[in-house]
Amino acid sequence: MISALPSYDQAAAQVAAYAAALGRRPVQFPNRERVELAQAPGRVLAQPLSADRDQPPFARSTRDGYACRAAEASIHKPLAVAGATRAGQTPSGPLPPRSVWEIMTGAPVPAGADAVIMLEHVEASGAAEANKIRLLPPRTIKPGENIVAQGAQARAGDELLPAGTALHSGQIALAAACGYASVEVFPRPRVAILATGDELVPVASSPAPGQIRNSNAPMLAVLVAAAGGEPWVLPTAADNASALDAALAQAASADLLLISGGVSAGKFDLVEPALARIGARFHFTGVRIQPGKPTVFGDLPRPAASHSLPFFGLPGNPVSTAVTFLLFAAPVLAALAGNAESYPRFALARLAPSADRHAKAGLTRFLPAFCNFGAVPAQPPQVSFVPWHGSGDLVALARSNCFLVIPEDAHSLEPGSLVRILLL
Amino acid sequence: MISALPSYDQAAAQVAAYAAALGRRPVQFPNRERVELAQAPGRVLAQPLSADRDQPPFARSTRDGYACRAAEASIHKPLAVAGATRAGQTPSGPLPPRSVWEIMTGAPVPAGADAVIMLEHVEASGAAEANKIRLLPPRTIKPGENIVAQGAQARAGDELLPAGTALHSGQIALAAACGYASVEVFPRPRVAILATGDELVPVASSPAPGQIRNSNAPMLAVLVAAAGGEPWVLPTAADNASALDAALAQAASADLLLISGGVSAGKFDLVEPALARIGARFHFTGVRIQPGKPTVFGDLPRPAASHSLPFFGLPGNPVSTAVTFLLFAAPVLAALAGNAESYPRFALARLAPSADRHAKAGLTRFLPAFCNFGAVPAQPPQVSFVPWHGSGDLVALARSNCFLVIPEDAHSLEPGSLVRILLL
Repeated sequence: MISALPSYDQAAAQVAAYAAALGRRPVQFPNRERVELAQAPGRVLAQPLSADRDQPPFARSTRDGYACRAAEASIHKPLAVAGATRAGQTPSGPLPPRSVWEIMTGAPVPAGADAVIMLEHVEASGAAEANKIRLLPPRTIKPGENIVAQGAQARAGDELLPAGTALHSGQIALAAACGYASVEVFPRPRVAILATGDELVPVASSPAPGQIRNSNAPMLAVLVAAAGGEPWVLPTAADNASALDAALAQAASADLLLISGGVSAGKFDLVEPALARIGARFHFTGVRIQPGKPTVFGDLPRPAASHSLPFFGLPGNPVSTAVTFLLFAAPVLAALAGNAESYPRFALARLAPSADRHAKAGLTRFLPAFCNFGAVPAQPPQVSFVPWHGSGDLVALARSNCFLVIPEDAHSLEPGSLVRILLL
Repeated sequence: MISALPSYDQAAAQVAAYAAALGRRPVQFPNRERVELAQAPGRVLAQPLSADRDQPPFARSTRDGYACRAAEASIHKPLAVAGATRAGQTPSGPLPPRSVWEIMTGAPVPAGADAVIMLEHVEASGAAEANKIRLLPPRTIKPGENIVAQGAQARAGDELLPAGTALHSGQIALAAACGYASVEVFPRPRVAILATGDELVPVASSPAPGQIRNSNAPMLAVLVAAAGGEPWVLPTAADNASALDAALAQAASADLLLISGGVSAGKFDLVEPALARIGARFHFTGVRIQPGKPTVFGDLPRPAASHSLPFFGLPGNPVSTAVTFLLFAAPVLAALAGNAESYPRFALARLAPSADRHAKAGLTRFLPAFCNFGAVPAQPPQVSFVPWHGSGDLVALARSNCFLVIPEDAHSLEPGSLVRILLL
């Protein structure tokens, strides 16, 4: 009964609530790791990052030019150049009255100065008044111009980034500026990846008729690593109860379990019964989306551990697997990683001309698409459908770089209209 | 003379043309590497990826149900269940007349069948006609329904992905499906990172008054690695000619050179003269953007090598450094990596309420911003400015996850309007 299934929005809200609850676990990560800053990109801060001194540490010129008193400079009388400070130096003394101080971008402003005249805005005085400059009339200058006050960005001791911040380039730069040669990070969640299906053979083998190579496990390993998890690929499980029971027992020590395949309505879709046998609590067993409708989300009790094991049964067709990982598993993985960033990530783009596509009533669709992200300035971000032959179409998946969202209530999408895309 | 500088669009077009020319170099990468598929994510294919057999390799059911002849099924007479095929098996024979064949998602369709009735759309016949089913009236079925024909996605030998394709999750899945246990990839370009400035001290040291820690080199190393390069951080160069000359000589063996700092108009901005001394050809020495106006782009002759060394002089203020890397250095790095993906990447989002910001006439601005990427379905992707104190504000940079673009000709941005964001 498709109408009994939750909508995408309902399922997403359930997953978000579950992830939020994980984030509130009192002792979430007893084991922290300390890593060198060079090894920290992609990790998640387990400690707040604090300023070791004021940022900036001194009143700092943002321009090459002359530090001055704004009131003196704005009457356009020649002012003596009393000294000079390069970046890395400290001014030898305060700014004497009726004078300016030559200064470089990034250098400390001498005491007494309240503004910096840009180099481009001064004129040197004539020969009679050597080593004097004046602000070019009719320009005037206000106190504070071209200076960032000491501590304007942060005060020594301020918490600059909370624990839970993922470390990308800008956060690494801030950590470096604050003297963190190493940082405490949360351990990466261990994500068990279990592909199921009698038809699956390993990548290196030659499939017999009726067989296909296992592409979901390598794909999920990439997605898991990109989302901050440590992939743990289990041996493929055959479509029988004892194989599934053994695989689930093996996965019990993981932080998250991803199962692909075996969740449809068929006679040999044995994943749900196997999960039920070990006491699974199911949050949903299908979502009104395409592809990915049979997605299962739940968690398994784990009496010895402080918390249960969340799992996703992802449909085995690879486009479904990828979409449902991004929509549902990624937010739970981020929460397990202690990462406060929210997933999934959507953006807006224009639908390319002649790319109209009829909607499918009652289902939110996430179709393989290619977005031209607007590298050429004249072209705004524009997205096209990648032709596909259904959710098994790996070729279409490999030619796409996002998924185009067709809302449940859309009748059709107009070329040129604004659409949502699910970012990888 | 700011008006003499190229606009952002002009500078971006220059960079794009340069990158395109790099991509057309006849023998771009004499040295290829073969890597195991598990090590290939993030790398760039140096060989086309081809189908080793038809995709799908057999006419494949996309549903659990009954393979049938559509014409026979659509008249709603009970049809005998002649056999069953699970995924991984091959049907034992062709479909006999007036019968159906039980079939699982992903299993090969028996010869003679032209459609698959979904399990949900059949009714079992009464006791008198055991082991027969019929399609539930008034539903009918058309040939081709719920079957993907053998080779519909690709034929054996077809080129599925060209050399130059970056390997993300979907491409890795396709490579696995086609039996690539390893792939040939292009070597990562070696990117020399040279931070300049007398004020810079290493992360682990305590800065004296007037000094700051070098945060640009670690930041650029993260950005370079994320864009597919191999970062090579050189020792910091002091603000004097001989230190710069020595550093530039050291960098000569790199594939790309990124210099941060020393490119403003000041007396100690010695980078351009140092580059000029070794014969640099400058493509631009400033762009009408904020932050990042003093950005320099050029290349250095390298008589012994087959091609010159492209370089960027990036302004030393960290927000400028990050923005100009993404706008200008990333596309050149992608081209050197043989990566056909285009950079920079923009998307669209809604400007948050009360986030209006006046434009700065004549400059395209790229301001630190935080995008809520719409994880909560009710909230469309929405972006806000992160308050900043100018291009030196690392705290603002570390709290942002994108940059909001204010076009050169914008007078102001209306809250709720559609804006462009530069993705990290």
